[in-house]
Amino acid sequence: MGGDLGPAVVLSAVLSVLREDPLLSVDLFGDEHQLAGMMASAGLSVSGDHRLTIHHAPDAVDMTDSPVHALRHKKHSSMRMALERLQSGQASACLSAGNTGALVLMGHHLLKTLPGVERAAMCTLLPSPDGHTFLLDVGATVEVTPALLLQHAKLGTAMARHLDGCTRPRVGLLNVGVEAGKGPMLMCDADALLRACADIEYRGFVEGNDLFAGTVEVVVTDGFTGNIALKASEGAARLVSIKVADYVRRHPLLGLLAGILRPLLKGLKSELDPESFNGACLLGLQGVVVKSHGASSERGMAQSLRLAARLGRSSLISDGMKVVV
Amino acid sequence: MGGDLGPAVVLSAVLSVLREDPLLSVDLFGDEHQLAGMMASAGLSVSGDHRLTIHHAPDAVDMTDSPVHALRHKKHSSMRMALERLQSGQASACLSAGNTGALVLMGHHLLKTLPGVERAAMCTLLPSPDGHTFLLDVGATVEVTPALLLQHAKLGTAMARHLDGCTRPRVGLLNVGVEAGKGPMLMCDADALLRACADIEYRGFVEGNDLFAGTVEVVVTDGFTGNIALKASEGAARLVSIKVADYVRRHPLLGLLAGILRPLLKGLKSELDPESFNGACLLGLQGVVVKSHGASSERGMAQSLRLAARLGRSSLISDGMKVVV
Repeated sequence: MGGDLGPAVVLSAVLSVLREDPLLSVDLFGDEHQLAGMMASAGLSVSGDHRLTIHHAPDAVDMTDSPVHALRHKKHSSMRMALERLQSGQASACLSAGNTGALVLMGHHLLKTLPGVERAAMCTLLPSPDGHTFLLDVGATVEVTPALLLQHAKLGTAMARHLDGCTRPRVGLLNVGVEAGKGPMLMCDADALLRACADIEYRGFVEGNDLFAGTVEVVVTDGFTGNIALKASEGAARLVSIKVADYVRRHPLLGLLAGILRPLLKGLKSELDPESFNGACLLGLQGVVVKSHGASSERGMAQSLRLAARLGRSSLISDGMKVVV
Repeated sequence: MGGDLGPAVVLSAVLSVLREDPLLSVDLFGDEHQLAGMMASAGLSVSGDHRLTIHHAPDAVDMTDSPVHALRHKKHSSMRMALERLQSGQASACLSAGNTGALVLMGHHLLKTLPGVERAAMCTLLPSPDGHTFLLDVGATVEVTPALLLQHAKLGTAMARHLDGCTRPRVGLLNVGVEAGKGPMLMCDADALLRACADIEYRGFVEGNDLFAGTVEVVVTDGFTGNIALKASEGAARLVSIKVADYVRRHPLLGLLAGILRPLLKGLKSELDPESFNGACLLGLQGVVVKSHGASSERGMAQSLRLAARLGRSSLISDGMKVVV
């Protein structure tokens, strides 16, 4: 159990999702004494709710730990113990807000990849005008091959089917232009490979702006480009809100009206909130692993937990066994 | 003379910048008859203004032309003729809204690179909370080496000095994490090279969100990643405005107030408008070449022309001769 905001945020997100989802049960891994203290001060007892079990994890993967160090030396960390619970079949999904690199390496080590998948991809949901776009990879594997991009295209297709019920999601390959022959050799080779695959609805190259345009349901790229595109977009959106807030501050009339408009603006804010899309899924492993943003608020953490529960109940993994071979 | 919006937009942007800048003169390359007709219908005569000269370019580079085709077969295109005017020293800067790939190839062919620069980089300005960030490369060279990234870091430094008067601009290298050793081998090698260079104020790796955060003044990356990060950010910002407009439509009270607030909102819009940052500079050539967005409005085109004029008057190129050796 990790996350930059500490265990209190995680605990309260868990309690709130347990309340809304009566069939869910959660195993929480972390510092038992700290968690018990928090429960007590909130007037709750662990034994009172059989759907929440706290497991003591004496160790923790730090954000600065190298993935290899974490794999070798953090055998009793909350991250590893949660993955082991998934591996043993005692859990249907694993959620972590910790060190991404360590989660990717431990996930591969403990769960193994699906047949036909060389490396997993981190898949995230981005908002579009009428729904959302699945982007993968956003950081699990920075150096890729055309064959791996094809595997990820199939995984993204499976994800869009399971989460959105989209029977034939359109797939695009992220590039610097839409014309064939554009961009690096790697992308041209991958384009040829995806074009020849009948299992996916491949629509050719797409550009950065297509991530938010609803042009396709699935966008495939390497983990380096995907990670930077995702964070650049978050940065641009954040700057817009800083500039809006600044502008309101400088114009007293807007400030006055803001009071009246607050309830309406709150609704708008929640529609635009990136937290409502929080939670990336580590796709291609033999188990559902969801990664929540390290700096998540309670709302973002709860959203990730709902995603983990939903994917854990779906047949994504068993279908994945067939999809990618 | 190109651009998706046609010559009318270019012409009216040129006329408006000529009015505000009494020392500027412009050579316009395009279809002479079409341009003369437009001037006449606007009640203007070319001979009436000695600061505007129209040159007939019988040919045009199409957006679908391959760069090699354009270089070989479009010798009388407006793009080539404008670059030749710069090459001959009869112009101080060249502005184009046409095919980027063709402009990059023709620019290299006609102007050559500065001593010590293997390939030029397309450098753009992004807004940040208190100023802006120079991002390069956003699409001139998709496959790079650590040595080229170092050359681009020096070019970006020169650009920030000339445009912002920043004596020691901070430089960051775009990556998937800030810790040393993260990301692909290429970026780690480039990190070592930049760290060893005393001519730049290198601050190590930065992430996608730093593009809009003001963490550093110059961000260096390859043309593939830079292009996608730029377009993804534009896509995210555009989606925010679509969602806001949608929300206003669904809430009549907001619609009513929008009427009252219009003048204030217009001011905000202009602060957020990406057009006000329009214009990327092809840095590293022996001449100032500015690229305007193909889909630019008159406002965006005028902004690019102001940038071209400003850089054409600066000592960017003569200083570049010394900076990068």
